Amino acid sequence: MAILGENRYGKAEVRVVHVDRGSDPHTVRDWNVSVSLAGDMREVHLSGANDRVLPTDTQKNTVYALAQQLGAVEPEVFALALARHFVDRQPSISRARVRLDSYGWTAIGPHSLVRSGGEVRTVAVVHDEQSGSRVVGGLNGLTLLNTTDSEFWGFARDEYTTLAETTDRMLATSVEARWRFRAADCDWAAAHQRARQALLDAFAGTYSYSLQQSLYAMGCRVLAEAPEVCEVRLALPNKHHFLVDLSPFGQPNDNEVYHAADRPYGLIEGQVLADDATDAGPAWS
Amino acid sequence: MAILGENRYGKAEVRVVHVDRGSDPHTVRDWNVSVSLAGDMREVHLSGANDRVLPTDTQKNTVYALAQQLGAVEPEVFALALARHFVDRQPSISRARVRLDSYGWTAIGPHSLVRSGGEVRTVAVVHDEQSGSRVVGGLNGLTLLNTTDSEFWGFARDEYTTLAETTDRMLATSVEARWRFRAADCDWAAAHQRARQALLDAFAGTYSYSLQQSLYAMGCRVLAEAPEVCEVRLALPNKHHFLVDLSPFGQPNDNEVYHAADRPYGLIEGQVLADDATDAGPAWS
Amino acid sequence: MAILGENRYGKAEVRVVHVDRGSDPHTVRDWNVSVSLAGDMREVHLSGANDRVLPTDTQKNTVYALAQQLGAVEPEVFALALARHFVDRQPSISRARVRLDSYGWTAIGPHSLVRSGGEVRTVAVVHDEQSGSRVVGGLNGLTLLNTTDSEFWGFARDEYTTLAETTDRMLATSVEARWRFRAADCDWAAAHQRARQALLDAFAGTYSYSLQQSLYAMGCRVLAEAPEVCEVRLALPNKHHFLVDLSPFGQPNDNEVYHAADRPYGLIEGQVLADDATDAGPAWS
Amino acid sequence: MAILGENRYGKAEVRVVHVDRGSDPHTVRDWNVSVSLAGDMREVHLSGANDRVLPTDTQKNTVYALAQQLGAVEPEVFALALARHFVDRQPSISRARVRLDSYGWTAIGPHSLVRSGGEVRTVAVVHDEQSGSRVVGGLNGLTLLNTTDSEFWGFARDEYTTLAETTDRMLATSVEARWRFRAADCDWAAAHQRARQALLDAFAGTYSYSLQQSLYAMGCRVLAEAPEVCEVRLALPNKHHFLVDLSPFGQPNDNEVYHAADRPYGLIEGQVLADDATDAGPAWS
Repeated sequence: MAILGENRYGKAEVRVVHVDRGSDPHTVRDWNVSVSLAGDMREVHLSGANDRVLPTDTQKNTVYALAQQLGAVEPEVFALALARHFVDRQPSISRARVRLDSYGWTAIGPHSLVRSGGEVRTVAVVHDEQSGSRVVGGLNGLTLLNTTDSEFWGFARDEYTTLAETTDRMLATSVEARWRFRAADCDWAAAHQRARQALLDAFAGTYSYSLQQSLYAMGCRVLAEAPEVCEVRLALPNKHHFLVDLSPFGQPNDNEVYHAADRPYGLIEGQVLADDATDAGPAWS
Repeated sequence: MAILGENRYGKAEVRVVHVDRGSDPHTVRDWNVSVSLAGDMREVHLSGANDRVLPTDTQKNTVYALAQQLGAVEPEVFALALARHFVDRQPSISRARVRLDSYGWTAIGPHSLVRSGGEVRTVAVVHDEQSGSRVVGGLNGLTLLNTTDSEFWGFARDEYTTLAETTDRMLATSVEARWRFRAADCDWAAAHQRARQALLDAFAGTYSYSLQQSLYAMGCRVLAEAPEVCEVRLALPNKHHFLVDLSPFGQPNDNEVYHAADRPYGLIEGQVLADDATDAGPAWS
Repeated sequence: MAILGENRYGKAEVRVVHVDRGSDPHTVRDWNVSVSLAGDMREVHLSGANDRVLPTDTQKNTVYALAQQLGAVEPEVFALALARHFVDRQPSISRARVRLDSYGWTAIGPHSLVRSGGEVRTVAVVHDEQSGSRVVGGLNGLTLLNTTDSEFWGFARDEYTTLAETTDRMLATSVEARWRFRAADCDWAAAHQRARQALLDAFAGTYSYSLQQSLYAMGCRVLAEAPEVCEVRLALPNKHHFLVDLSPFGQPNDNEVYHAADRPYGLIEGQVLADDATDAGPAWS
Repeated sequence: MAILGENRYGKAEVRVVHVDRGSDPHTVRDWNVSVSLAGDMREVHLSGANDRVLPTDTQKNTVYALAQQLGAVEPEVFALALARHFVDRQPSISRARVRLDSYGWTAIGPHSLVRSGGEVRTVAVVHDEQSGSRVVGGLNGLTLLNTTDSEFWGFARDEYTTLAETTDRMLATSVEARWRFRAADCDWAAAHQRARQALLDAFAGTYSYSLQQSLYAMGCRVLAEAPEVCEVRLALPNKHHFLVDLSPFGQPNDNEVYHAADRPYGLIEGQVLADDATDAGPAWS
């Protein structure tokens, strides 16, 4: 016999843009918001009875309505309010998760802006009627490169190992970082800025013998610079840059010309925790 | 003080193609393989000492070497052998995860083939030195559509609800399915074929009052048709098709012309288990 | 002083889906339609006066309205009607281009369908008030592979040439094909089917000494099988499959295991014309 | 009978990265280079005889070799040298086109850099043995937004027009710009910077009654600020931001909350020329 296990539903990728014309220059909040709700949804799965199902269309409307009500707030504030709204108002909903990508814009005039590029600020809030609110901040698409101060040698070997050791390689990655806040109240903008800067400083400042070492240094630095944070998770692709062999053409290549490879790539994932980290609860669900 | 938590590393997206010229017509295995290894990796994170780190380059080489050794096998067989290889051979590795996407090809001649399109067969194997092997099959990108036999009404309402009820709507989704096998031994090709067909049959055959109901029916049908499977996880985006209002032009629109929307979209996620499902262990990690 | 040169404007990527519930099984036309209009648009560029500008929003509405009026027609018929509509009705518009991507669906039940995959049928119509209508059909994303019967040797060499000659290589490509019809009236479905089959047959049936040779054979075959067509343009990426060197592991690799590379790739582009091809006019603009 | 028409071939998307460790801080040139060659290639199409075909693999090698020889140069200098190399050295090649995308990096330390984001600088060079060299610069992915100072009214109407007029809308676009240089010699970096700034200034500074008007102003401004340029081509998608109707919830929406739509989108394309523009020759081929 079949049993319904965990389930959730919601509206994904609501593209809401909020403009504050009261500020000088005008500011823009440009977000991609995804809502996911869980509760006692047994009946709708078994018989299709929808009386406990708040439509995903309503969730979309709620994103827009709250954006107007809340105005020019940080994305964490918005995500918390949105998640709590569904749990507080809908008896059938016991847990809400809100994920939000925030795209940056830079003023180039009193009412003109330019998109800041590939990097995205992320927020994930889980609000549970029992265990309260958890907030995870982060970023995607922060692409970093060290032209030197990276080695890789002394590694384990087996019969399939052909890699040469190196004491001077290029090291590049595109950072995907998530950091869990101790509490659901914080100076969100300042904390984001300090966590981001910690990632940059640790990557640039670490003489690296492996990407794992850089990862751990980056996690530790975020914890040190952003004490509001008690856990960091990092996924760092090793964006390989292979030195091109120009010797067939009689040319030197003293760490000058590289081939930037697409696939495959190394992928290093790790978690760094403060020794007094709070309980994560459903923060990562 | 900072503590290193969970971590893993590996080579992602090794694009290996195996050709069997001994069969008539020639057959092709076209895979994208990602390896992720875990074990006692504390030292490399703290000091950069790599003596327990089998290079990701070696992992890539191993994918190619095993592809030649194993020959024309099912992707689950390959993923199992690859995961076990790393755990069995490397003392520092206690768990290996292999994920594999398999792209389909159809013969159009004795040595000519055409790509089968958007659908991808997926395999995820976790082999743990303590708890053994787990296999999860699945597929992505199976896009389905019912032109009728779908209703949506009687749903919960609040002050932000504007959606009209409907007793005849289009229902479309792009299936992302994962199914966990009871054991690490199976007629993999046959099981995949039956699970896939079960998804098609249940989607097409369910008169649907909600996408949740279709999801549950699809999960149950996989369990019924593929008894080798004890758990199904489905993520079904509701790819909205909105009936266009042609009344401003004096035209009828009797379920004829739709706008296919990109974003936002509903997203329905759920898990269906056999009542005698085996312990999942680290299958989903 | 600055001069306004060529210009055009329109609505791009209108995602219209037409359902025919009168057929058994139900059929679906799933199109992505882009309109581009040109005419005397000097004033709107210089002063912003919009009186000659039919809004792109109106163009979108027209796509939906005509989809209902025309019903279950071939995409070429729809594109022709749409392009002519704008030129015939709007005095300021002298030329209209309609581009359309058509996504295939296959019935799996009386009112259920599955997406046919990655291949896309394309239509491009240009209607000019002076020179009339031109129709270009085609397809994208038809991915083909020969496991043998491909050689590459005897090529030109210079000081940067390191490539080894081969008398047995894998040859793979993803066909982007466009074919220009002699006239704006045709059995469109049959012609498309024959042109597509000609591409498959010529690729599979050509013992190839270069991808250029395959390209030319494919173009000639389309002209032979689809006499309604008088010009073919093909862009064929050489999707490199490199034989992996397994000799460091003491393993053979007799055309068995390949690395499928992403970038860079060869790109072969060519045009094949019937000797009595009609004047192309603005067909390719 | 079939006739071979225009044709070309080459290696696309060679990802070359050049590091200059002699500068302080280290600088990086991160390019995606595509080569396309044309000449008398009749024989290879008809019979597969490759003696006039310089392999695309050789073209790839040449990109790397020249990158080392030329060192830290502007991308236009590199593209010119590369295109001329093939035409000058290979008797069978009469025309070479080089396209190059350049990705920006910003120093964050003496040997550390961060990717600058979504914007890409583009170069296209055509060198012809008869008519010499042409250079087209440009950029993609410069996303701009005005929160006000945009109107749209007084437009043409027909029976499918439902759009309301507006005297205050948001205007957003993602600029794709190409500018043709008068000569193949120039202070390339300075010209690029001035052309880019001209686009920003004209977009931000134009009170706009239509996107066409903004486009023309942007083209004129580039010509004015970069006299090395004699032709500008712009493609401006109208990235629609629709004001959300919050009245069902009793809420105002005074140009505050918008839905950022994906598809369809307006697309405005136009060309602006200096009255003394040089002959374009094959620059745009």
